[in-house]
Amino acid sequence: MDAQIITIGDEILIGQTVDSNSARIAAELNGIGIRVQRIISVPDQEEAIIRALEEAVSEVYLVLLTGGLGPTRDDITKNALCAYFKVPLVFNEKVFRQNEIMLAARGIGMNLLNRSQAEIPRDSIPLKNETGTAPGLWFVRGGRVVVALPGVPHEMADILNKEVIPRLTKRFKTPVVIHRTINTFGAFEAHLADMLAGFENNLPPHVRLAYLPSYGIIKLRLSLTGSDRTTLEKERDYFQSELEKILGKYVWGYDRDTLEELVGKELVNRGATLSLAESCTGGGISRMITSVPGSSQYFAGSVVAYSNAVKKEWLGVTKKMLSIHGAVSRPVVEQMVRGALEKFSTAYAVATSGIAGPTGGTPAKPAGTVWIAVANQNRTISEKYMFGEGRQRVIRRSAHAALHMLLQVIRRYPA
Amino acid sequence: MDAQIITIGDEILIGQTVDSNSARIAAELNGIGIRVQRIISVPDQEEAIIRALEEAVSEVYLVLLTGGLGPTRDDITKNALCAYFKVPLVFNEKVFRQNEIMLAARGIGMNLLNRSQAEIPRDSIPLKNETGTAPGLWFVRGGRVVVALPGVPHEMADILNKEVIPRLTKRFKTPVVIHRTINTFGAFEAHLADMLAGFENNLPPHVRLAYLPSYGIIKLRLSLTGSDRTTLEKERDYFQSELEKILGKYVWGYDRDTLEELVGKELVNRGATLSLAESCTGGGISRMITSVPGSSQYFAGSVVAYSNAVKKEWLGVTKKMLSIHGAVSRPVVEQMVRGALEKFSTAYAVATSGIAGPTGGTPAKPAGTVWIAVANQNRTISEKYMFGEGRQRVIRRSAHAALHMLLQVIRRYPA
Repeated sequence: MDAQIITIGDEILIGQTVDSNSARIAAELNGIGIRVQRIISVPDQEEAIIRALEEAVSEVYLVLLTGGLGPTRDDITKNALCAYFKVPLVFNEKVFRQNEIMLAARGIGMNLLNRSQAEIPRDSIPLKNETGTAPGLWFVRGGRVVVALPGVPHEMADILNKEVIPRLTKRFKTPVVIHRTINTFGAFEAHLADMLAGFENNLPPHVRLAYLPSYGIIKLRLSLTGSDRTTLEKERDYFQSELEKILGKYVWGYDRDTLEELVGKELVNRGATLSLAESCTGGGISRMITSVPGSSQYFAGSVVAYSNAVKKEWLGVTKKMLSIHGAVSRPVVEQMVRGALEKFSTAYAVATSGIAGPTGGTPAKPAGTVWIAVANQNRTISEKYMFGEGRQRVIRRSAHAALHMLLQVIRRYPA
Repeated sequence: MDAQIITIGDEILIGQTVDSNSARIAAELNGIGIRVQRIISVPDQEEAIIRALEEAVSEVYLVLLTGGLGPTRDDITKNALCAYFKVPLVFNEKVFRQNEIMLAARGIGMNLLNRSQAEIPRDSIPLKNETGTAPGLWFVRGGRVVVALPGVPHEMADILNKEVIPRLTKRFKTPVVIHRTINTFGAFEAHLADMLAGFENNLPPHVRLAYLPSYGIIKLRLSLTGSDRTTLEKERDYFQSELEKILGKYVWGYDRDTLEELVGKELVNRGATLSLAESCTGGGISRMITSVPGSSQYFAGSVVAYSNAVKKEWLGVTKKMLSIHGAVSRPVVEQMVRGALEKFSTAYAVATSGIAGPTGGTPAKPAGTVWIAVANQNRTISEKYMFGEGRQRVIRRSAHAALHMLLQVIRRYPA
């Protein structure tokens, strides 16, 4: 079963708003085996909406629209739907009563604009909006289903989950689609593709593999389409284990796992604590660690040691090491990590020291050179990386590399 | 001049990735007076790409594609372009050399897949990709321009700004569009809209005002369209000064200014230094400060004092204050900021202490409660904020509020 999504709004076409609604709708449809064939964004213009609708309805059995259902002047989706289906707007008593109650609960009276929200195209079924005044609209015509949803993301998502998905599963016989994502670090995309050439050649047509790279992390997504969930799950497990055999040490997690969440889980499981000494990452690793709810349970704190004075005074880095090797070196990053471990009295510590660029590089240590160290009481491991150009890129890649090193160390050397 | 954008990638159509590229492209095109008429997302399938291209080229003079230019098997945009333009792939020596140098700098050798990145459709002009191996591609056929860009957002944006926009302004006669963005903090969108109702009503039709909110920062963008730049610039200055009269203290910068860059400039101008003591922001402010190239000139460092033990040992917060007032309080955040100022010996310091949530709140101090302090040698200023729900939202808003407070303090009280 194929579907198309039409998102409506000038703000999308001038780049003011990133359209996150269509990703949300696509993910939900995918989950019930409906394949989104294309997503089209058009401005708040009646002809543009009608044209997109005509094209979509001629190609697929399901069309979802979002946006332009509000009460203000630039919201014209309802008019476009009336023109397309050749029906008038009619007053819907039930929608009116629901909105009246909801607005009253917020201390707002009915005005003409709010009243107009209860006018819906004839022959459409209103879909209850529990958090706003614009109902969703459900049309069936010639075996095709057209659904219009408001553009406010939480209203859209609420109606989608509670009203649209249940109706769709009832109405359409859809295939089963399942996914498994394998999260890797440490191998470049071209390198992974080399390793996986044979594996990819042997994939049957109903199984697909996609590469999703992000600052050194590459996620490999297997998608399987069929009719029987149990069969597909067995196949998925088989292909997953094949992939893992090939990828080995590069695999660190699955699906929506993040490095910072897995680090948190491992630390909680071991009752262990963490501290950081960040130089070139400038607080970026701390920021990621503390983005996880409950991280105060295992994260003691961090020193962002940007100046050499702070490296010396707060972390015990010696003047000698700094003058012999420079701040971006194995001896200094190892002193930093030992300093953090001792001063914060944690089970694990991580340190970074590098040249984020664009300035500060030398021929021997070009911008993008980064030393990362991880330590527990008994050992200190450090590695050098060359992340190339681009300050933000170097910082992000360094943070990923550091979290990945930390995760491996925690897994191999429990505190 | 109208354009269409085609974004390519299965990950978009299954809802795994939110397509932020098209918003970025649309915003940049808008800036040079090119109107985006529709945005279409299609899967990594040759027929789907060709069909979208055929439709787009038949309707507009400029088509921009992103995605599917990587070296792996699911990247088929180049093949689709070859099929569409009826040209073969040809090896491009210049692209090959550039990639070789870039990969060598990262310690990576050439393999066959990386080599394939240097194969481009005949009659296309490669657009230099400084941060990746897939060049952009520029086609001209029958007066129409088709541009293909990689899907990795920072590569796409880099080629777009450095290669595509300059070529487009040279090639097409576009109307003159000029912008001025006024950056505010401290007033909510609805409040700004109230203040600006009269101003907006009096704007002539060729002048538009857009609201761009982001975690407490609201940017107000004036766009003026016309044929004569000098006239437009005069009008822009007039409307800008009118806006500033109304908005007063809420204005902190213009256009692409960021709080962290302005803080950096002010510190450099005064030869002053900065340190931080972050609790609830967890390194987020440090990360922003150090995202600015050259920040090592004024940024000494930061303590992320997530646990009370670290607040006491590293910053001198007293047990008494913690037990009487709790960590999220004026006395504690002020001790933190004084501690940072003294221990780092800097001219200015900033401290945050709050409850990012979702857990940890109480009826008296609900999640979202954040204390922020700014200090120099002579004074300490602290303020309480209520940022509501959503952990990431609270962290981001706190970081913006802290940087904004710091900027105001530096401007009012030079060290």
